[in-house]
Amino acid sequence: MKSIKNFAELLNLFSTVRPRRRVAVVCPHDNHTMQVVDRCLQMHLASFILVCSEPSAWASRLASSSDEVEMIMTDNIDDAARTAVTEVRQGNAQVVMKGAINTDNLLRAVLDKQTGLLPEGKVLTHVTAASMPSYHKLLLFSDAAVIPTPDLNQFEAMIKYDVDILHRLGITNPRIALIHFTEKINPRYPHTVAYQQLIEKAGQGYFGENVTISGPMDVKTACDTNSAKIKHIESSVAGHADLLIFPDLTAANTFYKSISMFGGATMAGIVCGAEAPIVIPSRADSAQSKLYSLALACIAQP
Amino acid sequence: MKSIKNFAELLNLFSTVRPRRRVAVVCPHDNHTMQVVDRCLQMHLASFILVCSEPSAWASRLASSSDEVEMIMTDNIDDAARTAVTEVRQGNAQVVMKGAINTDNLLRAVLDKQTGLLPEGKVLTHVTAASMPSYHKLLLFSDAAVIPTPDLNQFEAMIKYDVDILHRLGITNPRIALIHFTEKINPRYPHTVAYQQLIEKAGQGYFGENVTISGPMDVKTACDTNSAKIKHIESSVAGHADLLIFPDLTAANTFYKSISMFGGATMAGIVCGAEAPIVIPSRADSAQSKLYSLALACIAQP
Repeated sequence: MKSIKNFAELLNLFSTVRPRRRVAVVCPHDNHTMQVVDRCLQMHLASFILVCSEPSAWASRLASSSDEVEMIMTDNIDDAARTAVTEVRQGNAQVVMKGAINTDNLLRAVLDKQTGLLPEGKVLTHVTAASMPSYHKLLLFSDAAVIPTPDLNQFEAMIKYDVDILHRLGITNPRIALIHFTEKINPRYPHTVAYQQLIEKAGQGYFGENVTISGPMDVKTACDTNSAKIKHIESSVAGHADLLIFPDLTAANTFYKSISMFGGATMAGIVCGAEAPIVIPSRADSAQSKLYSLALACIAQP
Repeated sequence: MKSIKNFAELLNLFSTVRPRRRVAVVCPHDNHTMQVVDRCLQMHLASFILVCSEPSAWASRLASSSDEVEMIMTDNIDDAARTAVTEVRQGNAQVVMKGAINTDNLLRAVLDKQTGLLPEGKVLTHVTAASMPSYHKLLLFSDAAVIPTPDLNQFEAMIKYDVDILHRLGITNPRIALIHFTEKINPRYPHTVAYQQLIEKAGQGYFGENVTISGPMDVKTACDTNSAKIKHIESSVAGHADLLIFPDLTAANTFYKSISMFGGATMAGIVCGAEAPIVIPSRADSAQSKLYSLALACIAQP
């Protein structure tokens, strides 16, 4: 398999996923979500369970006209979230997508200890894939949305999920940069100590074969061979990163917003770790970006 | 005075600074530093004390041929740093510029309690000015280089220095965004509590008249009116920020490296708070960027 380098190729890959994924959409009452569902149906990319919290002529019409669509009517948004989660637990859906519901309400249903989707001990974390005119391939990064200050266990979980996704994107030798403003392991910056342990584990094959982890290094060194050269950083990751691991959510969110605002980035994001990948678009995302997120979720679904 | 919107205008302003500033250059032995000095002399932008730690035919020639240049020979780089600091203390120079010396060695001389340049109780902090094709004016931000985790006192000092610089750039009504991934004050994220206090102080005129501080908000909301609209954020800062205050160095450094790598940013940076602004270019900076940094320092010199 050729490695996926941009979102056009990601959509192509999405169209080859078999069996096609069934997506439980929670409250598909906003225009962007409806556009994404329509587009997927036109392109035969996925099938859908539309879990509505209010009457929807659009959903009713789709459900009655297409074998690919089922509609479930619920009483309110929390009911809709619980119903979508139940559909996944019963094996009727493999991906959850957020529509017109707050993230908090959706995650409450996902995280419910009795009826939710997160097995005990598993880590819920967010991964973004970005495509930018100034970078020669897709760039993944974690975690810009869920874990404020990752500990070693959470860093490990992130990297495992991300490596799995990179493999599914055909990247057989993922290069992972651990991001920090310093280039030295320094107990004053505890993240860098965790980084050292991650690098050691990678060296022992903990994250799989041909997975290279390097750092701490800054974003520019990770993505620009010239910067790495000036700084005399010898690493097969520097200048060629497939994945950036940020020390905390503050830095990762800054990266997300900066490349969106100033770098012309197109992005897709999903939440990993639950029994089904969850698409949680942000309010400002375009329909196109939501479609890419759904594609990533369907490809990432184990 | 018209407000300065880009680096060409900054250089114009630099050329009008009177009296012209005298810059103590510590170890002007690298090509970029020499280029900056040559260019400033050609354009009559500043005069120089070249504090050398090794013989320099270039410096000797300049000193003997130009009234604008003095050369001081020292025994080693630490001596050079101390000598430059002494020149400032004696009133012979108003700006310090780093050449071929490590930042640590230079700052040791600056921070020396007896013989240095930092009055007791003053805060040393870094400010960057960025120009990007995707933003309609200069964007300043703090602190991408010096203070790892600012406390309230340090945030206040940053903002005071930055407002002073913005005023010198002709921005009479500075709009300041306090950056965070959350949009709500939340004791779980201590920075946001400090932010609330900064906003209250700004409302009381603590940072001067016509200074508006708003947040927490993310980078995109601060710089893009459309994002602010989608998020229903009502603030005269949102979409129009002149200055971003980051919660910590990790986030600020991520921003710096991201806009440099992906946003086509040109940047200038100086260290404020000492008796003289200090230009501490990073190894990967271009000569052009170093010249802009020196311009900013000479304009910022109180």
